[in-house]
Amino acid sequence: MPELVERARAGEPRAVARLISLVEDRSPSLREVSAALAPLAGGAHIVGITGSPGVGKSTSTSALVSALRALGKRVGVLAVDPTSPFSGGALLGDRVRMQDHATDEGVYIRSMASRGHLGGLSASAPQALRVLDAAGCDVVLVETVGVGQSEVEIAGLADTTLVLLAPGMGDGIQAAKAGILEIGDVFVVNKADRDGAQSTRRELRSVIAMTDRADGSWKPPILLTTATTGEGVAEVVDEVLAHRLHLEESGELTRRRLARVRREIEALALTEVQSRFSHLSGDARLDTLAAQVLDGSTDPFAAADTLVEQL
Amino acid sequence: MPELVERARAGEPRAVARLISLVEDRSPSLREVSAALAPLAGGAHIVGITGSPGVGKSTSTSALVSALRALGKRVGVLAVDPTSPFSGGALLGDRVRMQDHATDEGVYIRSMASRGHLGGLSASAPQALRVLDAAGCDVVLVETVGVGQSEVEIAGLADTTLVLLAPGMGDGIQAAKAGILEIGDVFVVNKADRDGAQSTRRELRSVIAMTDRADGSWKPPILLTTATTGEGVAEVVDEVLAHRLHLEESGELTRRRLARVRREIEALALTEVQSRFSHLSGDARLDTLAAQVLDGSTDPFAAADTLVEQL
Repeated sequence: MPELVERARAGEPRAVARLISLVEDRSPSLREVSAALAPLAGGAHIVGITGSPGVGKSTSTSALVSALRALGKRVGVLAVDPTSPFSGGALLGDRVRMQDHATDEGVYIRSMASRGHLGGLSASAPQALRVLDAAGCDVVLVETVGVGQSEVEIAGLADTTLVLLAPGMGDGIQAAKAGILEIGDVFVVNKADRDGAQSTRRELRSVIAMTDRADGSWKPPILLTTATTGEGVAEVVDEVLAHRLHLEESGELTRRRLARVRREIEALALTEVQSRFSHLSGDARLDTLAAQVLDGSTDPFAAADTLVEQL
Repeated sequence: MPELVERARAGEPRAVARLISLVEDRSPSLREVSAALAPLAGGAHIVGITGSPGVGKSTSTSALVSALRALGKRVGVLAVDPTSPFSGGALLGDRVRMQDHATDEGVYIRSMASRGHLGGLSASAPQALRVLDAAGCDVVLVETVGVGQSEVEIAGLADTTLVLLAPGMGDGIQAAKAGILEIGDVFVVNKADRDGAQSTRRELRSVIAMTDRADGSWKPPILLTTATTGEGVAEVVDEVLAHRLHLEESGELTRRRLARVRREIEALALTEVQSRFSHLSGDARLDTLAAQVLDGSTDPFAAADTLVEQL
């Protein structure tokens, strides 16, 4: 196993892919992998990319990869689909998307599913990110495929969160609703060649000015891009790197990462407890407790307490 | 608190409603309520009602209530909406639906939401059912509002599962896909006044004959109804009551209820563990573990194990 980690560390794409599969499949060897990876991780800058469907998230991600490669950075991309139970070096994930980078050895692209995983994103994604981190990526872009609550959850995985919007379609209001204004570190109005880009930026600026931010010392920039042509994307990369510098200098990087690891530990602990419970079917103690609830001599809460004590 | 349970036991609707609200809100007094209810429950026949949207589920439920009332039974209805985070003696749930029974003192109607509840239906619904049970309902109908996986999950809550279909619309195939053929104890082809009811019944019969069933000693009947007029509904009630008799005589009732309580205990235990974890934010031990993961001296799995041991 350490050999596989060594090969991933050396940049061998198949070893990286294999390690992420072990994470996805919750392989029994995951603990060993995790122990081997932990000392190697921490170098990568994790950038979350979020935004409503239709804002050009995957085109933007692809354009950001190009811009980062132009700076000589090694880049990882993790696309998480919280609505799919299918895991994946999957069809949509790795192949169709981002074909531009398919042959670039400095780019790792992976997709994974998280539906039905207890703890959702927070239980599986951090470990996949750690694989890409340990494999020597300078920057790892993480984005959610599909819609939903995960829009905000993605920020919990990242050092820097990039929020994408597009002109019109009431995106400004939608964003405010979803709570993503609070969590964005860099805002991008994509499809800037369309009408209304400037007014969306203005609207955003005034809304953000009124927003309570956890890190009050960073004033989030709002940039315009046309991801399809690459226009403005280099400036986004500049701001992302500037934010990284700010995170380091302000101590916010450590604060965010500590919070992230705390959530990860909690999620894994919960998963561990659930798996212990699921091994209890056929367990005589659980059967006894169930029989006692049924005959009214105890109640489900008291029985659950007993079960937890017996853990 | 036992006074509230006593009042519910005596059939006071407001006391029943209040107890279910305590369940939904996960009130701190829930344990006390649960302990008081446990010895009182077990008398009610829990009937799950499932089927794809458009088959006439809520009209059928209302018609079943009428038919059960005609037999002098006290009836509870629990409508669970697994897609909604809003809880409720809610708008749709209690008021608009089933207005026919709104003034009948022998009928309790409640809706509840389960989205976002750890353990979903299995964590909250059994307790709400126990309230209706302890309140003296002879039969409690439980159905899901909305679509989804819960179609099958509902069977896990019930003594008898009633599967509704409608002619056409490829319902036969849909049902087979969703796995509800395996879990149905009584099948109903509703909207029998439409073309294709008989052929849907034939199709169903041949598919069911090939289905592996957990309880092989019961041959599930397939009935035709027109819920809007009440046609055929009394026969459904007859079969539901026949199934109850079968459950008692075969010992299957106890087996099902034991399995149900086991799941409930597991779900509650998991909820309890999660709530203990969530109280750990700011806990120095968790902070220490997180710092160790971050500096690479331990890994998240090992840290999670430590956390579980410290529980």
